[in-house]
Amino acid sequence: MKKAYKGHVIFTSESHKFDVFENSYVLVEDGKVTGIQQQAPEGMDVVDWGDRLIIPGLVDLHFHAPQFPNIGLGLDKELLPWLEDYTFPTEAKFKDPAYAKDVYSAVVKMLWRNGTTRAVLFSSLHGETTDILMDLCHQAGIGAYVGKVNMDRNTPDFLVEETGQSIADTKAWIDRTGDKYPMVKPIITPRFVPTCSSELMNELGKMAAEMDLPIQSHISENLGEVEWVKDLHPEFDTYADVYEGHGLWGDRTIMAHCVHNTNEEIKMMAKAGVMAAHCPNANNNLSSGVMPVRAFMEAGCKVGLGTDVGAGHKVSMAQVMSQAVQMSKLKWLESGKQLAPLTTAEAFYLGTKGGGSFFGKVGSFEPGFAFDALVIDDAGLSAGGQRSIEERLQRFIYCGDDRNIITRYVEGKELNEPNF
Amino acid sequence: MKKAYKGHVIFTSESHKFDVFENSYVLVEDGKVTGIQQQAPEGMDVVDWGDRLIIPGLVDLHFHAPQFPNIGLGLDKELLPWLEDYTFPTEAKFKDPAYAKDVYSAVVKMLWRNGTTRAVLFSSLHGETTDILMDLCHQAGIGAYVGKVNMDRNTPDFLVEETGQSIADTKAWIDRTGDKYPMVKPIITPRFVPTCSSELMNELGKMAAEMDLPIQSHISENLGEVEWVKDLHPEFDTYADVYEGHGLWGDRTIMAHCVHNTNEEIKMMAKAGVMAAHCPNANNNLSSGVMPVRAFMEAGCKVGLGTDVGAGHKVSMAQVMSQAVQMSKLKWLESGKQLAPLTTAEAFYLGTKGGGSFFGKVGSFEPGFAFDALVIDDAGLSAGGQRSIEERLQRFIYCGDDRNIITRYVEGKELNEPNF
Repeated sequence: MKKAYKGHVIFTSESHKFDVFENSYVLVEDGKVTGIQQQAPEGMDVVDWGDRLIIPGLVDLHFHAPQFPNIGLGLDKELLPWLEDYTFPTEAKFKDPAYAKDVYSAVVKMLWRNGTTRAVLFSSLHGETTDILMDLCHQAGIGAYVGKVNMDRNTPDFLVEETGQSIADTKAWIDRTGDKYPMVKPIITPRFVPTCSSELMNELGKMAAEMDLPIQSHISENLGEVEWVKDLHPEFDTYADVYEGHGLWGDRTIMAHCVHNTNEEIKMMAKAGVMAAHCPNANNNLSSGVMPVRAFMEAGCKVGLGTDVGAGHKVSMAQVMSQAVQMSKLKWLESGKQLAPLTTAEAFYLGTKGGGSFFGKVGSFEPGFAFDALVIDDAGLSAGGQRSIEERLQRFIYCGDDRNIITRYVEGKELNEPNF
Repeated sequence: MKKAYKGHVIFTSESHKFDVFENSYVLVEDGKVTGIQQQAPEGMDVVDWGDRLIIPGLVDLHFHAPQFPNIGLGLDKELLPWLEDYTFPTEAKFKDPAYAKDVYSAVVKMLWRNGTTRAVLFSSLHGETTDILMDLCHQAGIGAYVGKVNMDRNTPDFLVEETGQSIADTKAWIDRTGDKYPMVKPIITPRFVPTCSSELMNELGKMAAEMDLPIQSHISENLGEVEWVKDLHPEFDTYADVYEGHGLWGDRTIMAHCVHNTNEEIKMMAKAGVMAAHCPNANNNLSSGVMPVRAFMEAGCKVGLGTDVGAGHKVSMAQVMSQAVQMSKLKWLESGKQLAPLTTAEAFYLGTKGGGSFFGKVGSFEPGFAFDALVIDDAGLSAGGQRSIEERLQRFIYCGDDRNIITRYVEGKELNEPNF
């Protein structure tokens, strides 16, 4: 099925600049982009978006769905007490399918509303209600990796798994959901080193290798956490070594935060192809510090962006982009102007093609890429004169919100507002 | 005229905690709060806001109205090149009344929409079109100090004043507008030291003293700027001394930014009663650094918040509050945990009663305060359970937007959406 979408097309095939096609047609066949051209295509249906912008759908690499009830709350705490006081008690409620369905419906609607067309999600340790989240993503048409969380130590009695049961539940969950949906897939999700025994991590690493599954976890968000990992695993030199030593470190692994990684660990990530998920809102809210994104990019690491709801208080990936630029400027100052600030184009790249690469050819409009797209009506954002397409996108990123997103596509399919 | 407003009333009479009155009545007489009570008042009209929150109107201490066309743009630059490339060329357009009316109408609507009930605004150096901005604020019912900018050196030829003319224009503008509106008043506005000769600053200082007018300017936003001021005024020890030495330093002065003030300057501000306007978005966007707000508060300085549009990309003071908290957490880390992070209550205080004190008894619901208020409908922000009134306000600050503000009052008068 062929179709063409007309508008002002803008994306980032490379990180350092915007590709801009004014008044052009994106040609799409079977959900994939086949080209972009200025002349009207012959013999194809055209969807004419007029003066609007057509941009790639946004990609969120890190989002704790069961923490959605806590967004914007309890932000006077650091990571570890925040987990104990807010996060864990809330996550425990997700054994109840009715509660899970209520919250997860709100989560998926918020993703839809904010133009997140692909997301990598944590659920809770509850396999059954993780299915609910996957099903809702599928219904909404959003592409997602969803992870049932594993955690068998150092968490409260009301939210902990016995190691064998954790593994068995994970296998059963993958059996149920691995082939169920075309665009919603399971991802192996050890919460983070402090809450996962070596046995559990080893088994999960094996499972990922055997079943060819991706992996997500957290690393070096907070200095207290880094020290804790050192105490727990004196047999390893670094936090990264712990993951690597348990088979959880490879080119289909996402590691969220990376605020306090050593240079050695950054090199390890680049070499193995581990993707860093930068979550500036959450890092600010939990007083964790600022990830030196530029250092990761310069080392050749794969980098994407995440909202990290609920420590992050906004579901909007556009807001995360502007926040990433802001924080990179502070890092530039802090580094004695060594680590250059992100440009707007770079932040946009991280939130589209950068993170999108975890899903394959996603996040750009080059030929062969999935037509995941947003139509942006920015008429209400302008005042005092005409602007270039690039300036209009910048303004949407900095000043816009979900009201400016008037249509969403994933793999060429238009997503209606979820009716759950 | 007496009236009572019923709802969940929350404000900050002191900075360290929220005052919460659940299901209570705010009693208002002639636009001023006379009390808050739980029982229904007798013989008074009651406006019942049900389960909504009633909070003080938000106060923006720093906003460049003519920079509104630039919001969200050009943010890959630092202060001084950004002024040259973006700000000055745009401001020059404000000699045209039609252009000014177009942009200023959009500005005032945005203030209204975002629940800013009191604002301290810069216009441009054009006296006549400054009148337009004042008139629009008046029409909208927003309380404002508006400043015709003075600048007679170190700016481009197309945007500079001759010293005598600058003073004459300012006098004429104050004569026209000083007594014209009940809640919109002129404020003396030397742009900042680098663009104002000593003669101009001296004359403006005298004018402020003679006519009993408030003053606003900028200080120590950027290290390059601080060095420049040192070069321009070797006869003074500090940037603050330059303002003080020209009669621009007193308890009706606002100084925006204060990122790089010395401890000595902070003490000078506290002693003189100069108010600091903290503008975290703008400081991040222009790579200026993070103001140590806690140091100012501990020194006994008056502090409020500002959006600093256009360097700041959001008109929402609620967003500035959450950004102020985030930045104070980074400052806490940077200071070796010496400067405690702002709590949500403190940030709310700064954006209501803190900045509001520049307008008199504004920004709280204590008896005698102006009934400047917003009604917040946060139903769409909740998921997964009941929350306390304090948590609901926190969530509005972090996750809400103008859609949650369903009614605005200033001095007891409900503000309709501006129809210009």
